[in-house]
Amino acid sequence: MAIIVQKFGGTSVANAEKIRAAAKKTIKAVKNGYQVVVVASARGKQTDQLVADALEINPDPSPREMDQLLHTGEIQTVALYAMALDEMGYDAISMTGYQIKMVTDNNHSKARIKSIDADRIHKYLNQGKIVLIAGFQGINDEEHVTTLGRGGSDTTAVAIAAVLHAEICEIYTDVDGIYTTDPRIFKDAAKINQISYDEMLEMASLGAGVMHSRSIEFGKNYNVKIHVRSSSEDKEGTIITHEVPQMEDIVVSGATIQKDLAKIGIIGVDHKPGNAAKIFSALATAKVVISDIIQTEINNEKANISFTTSTSDLKAAKKAVDSLKDALNFEKVFVREDIAAISVIGVGMRTHYGVADKMFNALAKEKINIDSISTSEICISCIVDEDQAEKALAAVCRAFDLDKPAEKRITKG
Amino acid sequence: MAIIVQKFGGTSVANAEKIRAAAKKTIKAVKNGYQVVVVASARGKQTDQLVADALEINPDPSPREMDQLLHTGEIQTVALYAMALDEMGYDAISMTGYQIKMVTDNNHSKARIKSIDADRIHKYLNQGKIVLIAGFQGINDEEHVTTLGRGGSDTTAVAIAAVLHAEICEIYTDVDGIYTTDPRIFKDAAKINQISYDEMLEMASLGAGVMHSRSIEFGKNYNVKIHVRSSSEDKEGTIITHEVPQMEDIVVSGATIQKDLAKIGIIGVDHKPGNAAKIFSALATAKVVISDIIQTEINNEKANISFTTSTSDLKAAKKAVDSLKDALNFEKVFVREDIAAISVIGVGMRTHYGVADKMFNALAKEKINIDSISTSEICISCIVDEDQAEKALAAVCRAFDLDKPAEKRITKG
Repeated sequence: MAIIVQKFGGTSVANAEKIRAAAKKTIKAVKNGYQVVVVASARGKQTDQLVADALEINPDPSPREMDQLLHTGEIQTVALYAMALDEMGYDAISMTGYQIKMVTDNNHSKARIKSIDADRIHKYLNQGKIVLIAGFQGINDEEHVTTLGRGGSDTTAVAIAAVLHAEICEIYTDVDGIYTTDPRIFKDAAKINQISYDEMLEMASLGAGVMHSRSIEFGKNYNVKIHVRSSSEDKEGTIITHEVPQMEDIVVSGATIQKDLAKIGIIGVDHKPGNAAKIFSALATAKVVISDIIQTEINNEKANISFTTSTSDLKAAKKAVDSLKDALNFEKVFVREDIAAISVIGVGMRTHYGVADKMFNALAKEKINIDSISTSEICISCIVDEDQAEKALAAVCRAFDLDKPAEKRITKG
Repeated sequence: MAIIVQKFGGTSVANAEKIRAAAKKTIKAVKNGYQVVVVASARGKQTDQLVADALEINPDPSPREMDQLLHTGEIQTVALYAMALDEMGYDAISMTGYQIKMVTDNNHSKARIKSIDADRIHKYLNQGKIVLIAGFQGINDEEHVTTLGRGGSDTTAVAIAAVLHAEICEIYTDVDGIYTTDPRIFKDAAKINQISYDEMLEMASLGAGVMHSRSIEFGKNYNVKIHVRSSSEDKEGTIITHEVPQMEDIVVSGATIQKDLAKIGIIGVDHKPGNAAKIFSALATAKVVISDIIQTEINNEKANISFTTSTSDLKAAKKAVDSLKDALNFEKVFVREDIAAISVIGVGMRTHYGVADKMFNALAKEKINIDSISTSEICISCIVDEDQAEKALAAVCRAFDLDKPAEKRITKG
């Protein structure tokens, strides 16, 4: 019997009415002949409330106790979900992370899954039960409660789908799928029917917040087909899957905008081997994530080095750089926070040329200055002035027909 | 190193401020040189809220899912309690019922404890940690969550104290100890310094609601000294312990009033061997708890049989009795709900005479009619009219000096 895993986020199970609506989707899958496993998050603002309760008692609570506190929210949801299904005449059982032996490493608040007791889930499915699993949580080898961090329930769902060899993992959410770009910024964004894990990973890491990167990595590594769809409407959403040949016909699948960026420039660094390494080693020690490193020679003795980072890492990055002033003998450091990155993503770039050219032309036509450029195999990013960023995104989207469904794009291969 | 177990009820941990106040009592015990284990209930009205959430979804939720839902409240409290102790500079760790392997039988919502992993608790205590244990909850042999029912956290605390061979189990509550009778009804009631398990069991079963009977039974069976005391004031409460010789000098330790009683009388039952057995067998089948059975012969052929039960069991009792009309050939059934029981309790009764006499005289002096009387080794109960019950309680309390501390009672042996 084929298995479906359905995941419902906090807004989709926020109250009794929404839990009942979610339960109806579960029952529909049962009626379609599937064994169904549901993974749910904590209801609505429950987790926020628990975090507030904790901070009222201790401004810096230990991650171990924070996990112990927060994992209760998901348990409440699945117990209530089981009651809802029972009331509708369906046999259901709720399970905690511990009860399905969701064993993780010891990293409280950002644990990684090591193993899951699939047999126990199969046992209840084979008894004709719908199995409801509290998302976001696990236990480590010593049976302390761990949590998987932001977006953790997505990862729970995809991991469960992987170990059960589920036909599909449905992610029910408050949007009806993945869009070519953020529809709040570019209102003509088109819904994507199908996207590859690699493209989705790039989009997630570049700020498209529908799914957490880790769950997509999991899906890619364990070959789990993921369907992101609306919890309020009954229509198809976006399938995230392995690359299929027709995906390569689409040069650009999506575009992103990142505004929480900062650029640090170090002017007049001594042009000596090893100096760049000193900078990036100091930044790594300070746990600063960086991108877009640019080094330009001024003359034989001096060079400028700049890089971008997120605004949340800026303070730590500035401190790390400043600490090297004597060692590197640089002249000064400048910081720019008024920048944004516009990126285009598509596995089709691997086999098509001219994407960068088309992107730069689209920006030039709108008189948008490009500060710097970085590229990967399936992504091109341009740093632009923040106040031109939304105009830049729109220009790029129009250039690559991202306001049209994939099958209608003239920029197809 | 001696161990103390401290239990805090829901009102004593209702918010951040109260959790901090409770934590200070824990720290005081640590400073006094004890290893400390804390058992806590769900905060304030959290359990009520969860019950309401459940009933909104399913008017008749399964006990298994109800236990899964409700056990989260206690986990939240102990995680927050650990954060509070941490913030005050003390090393603490919270544990769920599962994490200390609190194994129970399968009776969801009223499970009985089978075993506890004391080694795990000792391990953390020996690391210098304060161990916080979520009350009320356990797991059965299949690792499903169970709960111990009303007053369950008291039972958790006493059971933990038993397996750890704790010096004492402190029950912190919103009253400052056990009183000779309910101070809301007889305002001159005196606080009891020391009371035996047997007396406390009688008082609990007769409606004195401070502690649940099961936890007292546990204390008696495993020799756990229990100290019921105030969570808001720092003064001695009531010690519940094994009988000590001086307890026998006090003829009557306390008095109770039970108002939720009903009496059923069966008039004109055929006076044949086995007829009474038929009645009480039918009541047992209907799970009706009864007391004070009285049979009076009318003549050689007919007898009257009456008994008391709680008003909550009345409907089931009446139905069971009515079903026997043909078999027993009785004339009619009457029901009285306007009755109450006044009881006096004291282990001293075992060795002192005249208690019943003094009680009846006290009631007679106030012109209170006694409907029926029942006695046990350490308890005498009189059924009276409900509207005379409070006057009756006061009369009995004064007769046995229950408005004075034990050491000042002239009725001492």
